[in-house]
Amino acid sequence: MGILDLSNELAIGIDIGGTNTKYGIVNHRGEILDKGDIKTDAYPSIEEFIEGLHNAMMPIIEKHSSVGIKGIGMGAPNGNYYTGTIEYAPNLPWRGIIPIAKMVTEKFSIPCTLTNDANAAAMGEMMYGAARGMKDFIMITLGTGVGSGIVSNGLMIYGHDGFAGELGHIIVRPGGRKHWSTGAHGSLEAYCSATGIAITAKKLRAENIHSALNEISEDKIDSLAVFEVAEKGDETAKEVFRYTGQILGEALANFIMFSSPEAIILFGGVIKAGDYIMKPTKEHMEKNLLPIFQNKVKLVFSELKEADAAILGASALAWET
Amino acid sequence: MGILDLSNELAIGIDIGGTNTKYGIVNHRGEILDKGDIKTDAYPSIEEFIEGLHNAMMPIIEKHSSVGIKGIGMGAPNGNYYTGTIEYAPNLPWRGIIPIAKMVTEKFSIPCTLTNDANAAAMGEMMYGAARGMKDFIMITLGTGVGSGIVSNGLMIYGHDGFAGELGHIIVRPGGRKHWSTGAHGSLEAYCSATGIAITAKKLRAENIHSALNEISEDKIDSLAVFEVAEKGDETAKEVFRYTGQILGEALANFIMFSSPEAIILFGGVIKAGDYIMKPTKEHMEKNLLPIFQNKVKLVFSELKEADAAILGASALAWET
Repeated sequence: MGILDLSNELAIGIDIGGTNTKYGIVNHRGEILDKGDIKTDAYPSIEEFIEGLHNAMMPIIEKHSSVGIKGIGMGAPNGNYYTGTIEYAPNLPWRGIIPIAKMVTEKFSIPCTLTNDANAAAMGEMMYGAARGMKDFIMITLGTGVGSGIVSNGLMIYGHDGFAGELGHIIVRPGGRKHWSTGAHGSLEAYCSATGIAITAKKLRAENIHSALNEISEDKIDSLAVFEVAEKGDETAKEVFRYTGQILGEALANFIMFSSPEAIILFGGVIKAGDYIMKPTKEHMEKNLLPIFQNKVKLVFSELKEADAAILGASALAWET
Repeated sequence: MGILDLSNELAIGIDIGGTNTKYGIVNHRGEILDKGDIKTDAYPSIEEFIEGLHNAMMPIIEKHSSVGIKGIGMGAPNGNYYTGTIEYAPNLPWRGIIPIAKMVTEKFSIPCTLTNDANAAAMGEMMYGAARGMKDFIMITLGTGVGSGIVSNGLMIYGHDGFAGELGHIIVRPGGRKHWSTGAHGSLEAYCSATGIAITAKKLRAENIHSALNEISEDKIDSLAVFEVAEKGDETAKEVFRYTGQILGEALANFIMFSSPEAIILFGGVIKAGDYIMKPTKEHMEKNLLPIFQNKVKLVFSELKEADAAILGASALAWET
């Protein structure tokens, strides 16, 4: 191997979540060679957080220091690709605008690129997952919230300010359900996130007193619990997913008429409900498309392991630079 | 000037509409040096149409033949950039899939690039109009129908199949007004096209018997007629535009959360209603945006003369190749 062979170069991926921050060292094949995590919320100031992250990561960085490390890719809620700042993230401990990419670059002496967590997930899918080789796709993350990353012409759509791709906040039912945090009425997230599904389940079980959903205690009602009740044949539990899938499918049809992707890739806890949600989603997606778009957009699940996807996605950013 | 100076090179723009086909020879500064038109619907077969177009255009092509002609750009309903074909255009006389770019290239011995008419309009705006220098914008054409062209990262979004940007068919009112042609319920075009505005006006004048809108004969009700009545102070006529603007504004907010454009550029006959439609559009657009998107997206009118825009837009395609 000559000195110009970079195929064994490595990238670092860091995923900052409200509770945990995960990190890993990744090779070109998407294998995580080493990984770890720290508690995000244990660091009240961003300086302490970066100090803690640096201390935690130094052993694995030194371990691989004989191989070049191309860069650090970082995904975070409200992370802005253009400015490298996290801006007013409601679920992180640090207020205001945090110039985290610059701070990490200086602390680690390795160039750091930031994007939001949903865009990072889409990057990971394009580099290592279900979107390999695709130039046009949309990734939708159905978790506690609804996130999204949109790729068109082979490029992530960041928009003029770096904030593009907030599909969870698109209004799909004007005047509909009020969002617990934004206050908007009828947004996709209000219905199709895990939180939205729990609200739907509580509403429907109140209307159907014989449903086995009523046997679950109030604080245990979540997407997984509803799935388990559906598996036992409960029609109300199935209706929760049918209703959610209809709204998701209608929204996906609108997204397709915007950017005409080759595929829509779904990711996140909600997709564990499988066909209960996928069948109505697919049905209403197709039904709401113009004929020229029908029966050609793939609706698939992520191919990345949920535990690794965030690290892989973030690391994918580092190869770009 | 040496032989490598191409600044005086020319491009041909052809805009195929259901009734007329306009063509022109355009320079780099967006000046139309010569133009003309033929009747699209006078040619029952595509072969006759291309023969007729060639005969009509040869005099002006020969006139400029001492200068290089870089290419022909063509805009047409259902025109596909990737395949160069017009596919199942309901308003054109020719059925099925028409390989028009190839046919024109061969007939004129000049390379021809095709796109749909709304994308061509956006190209023209980027090259010569209100979107000069922008890398992220959305162009919305409010005419008989609602068309759109979306530019992101400086590139037109065509999608994987060339059909992206059908924003007129996005559902903005699930279960709402049935579209006269697609049969879909609640699409943007059903409300915000000139046709949609006429429907709203007829509905509202029936509910408000004292409105001066009732003095217009049934077949004369259109966007312009409603505007004229609004100018005389009629509240029902104003309400037609307020209602239309609200729906348009809500839709634009959704589009912004998708691709975060620097500007939305409006074009077409409907915008002649000016503030009657723009004020509610802007108000409801801002109201439905997440705070991070508020008060930063420009909502502007096209800067191109309506009579020339289609030719300029189509010609802009030719410079790209």
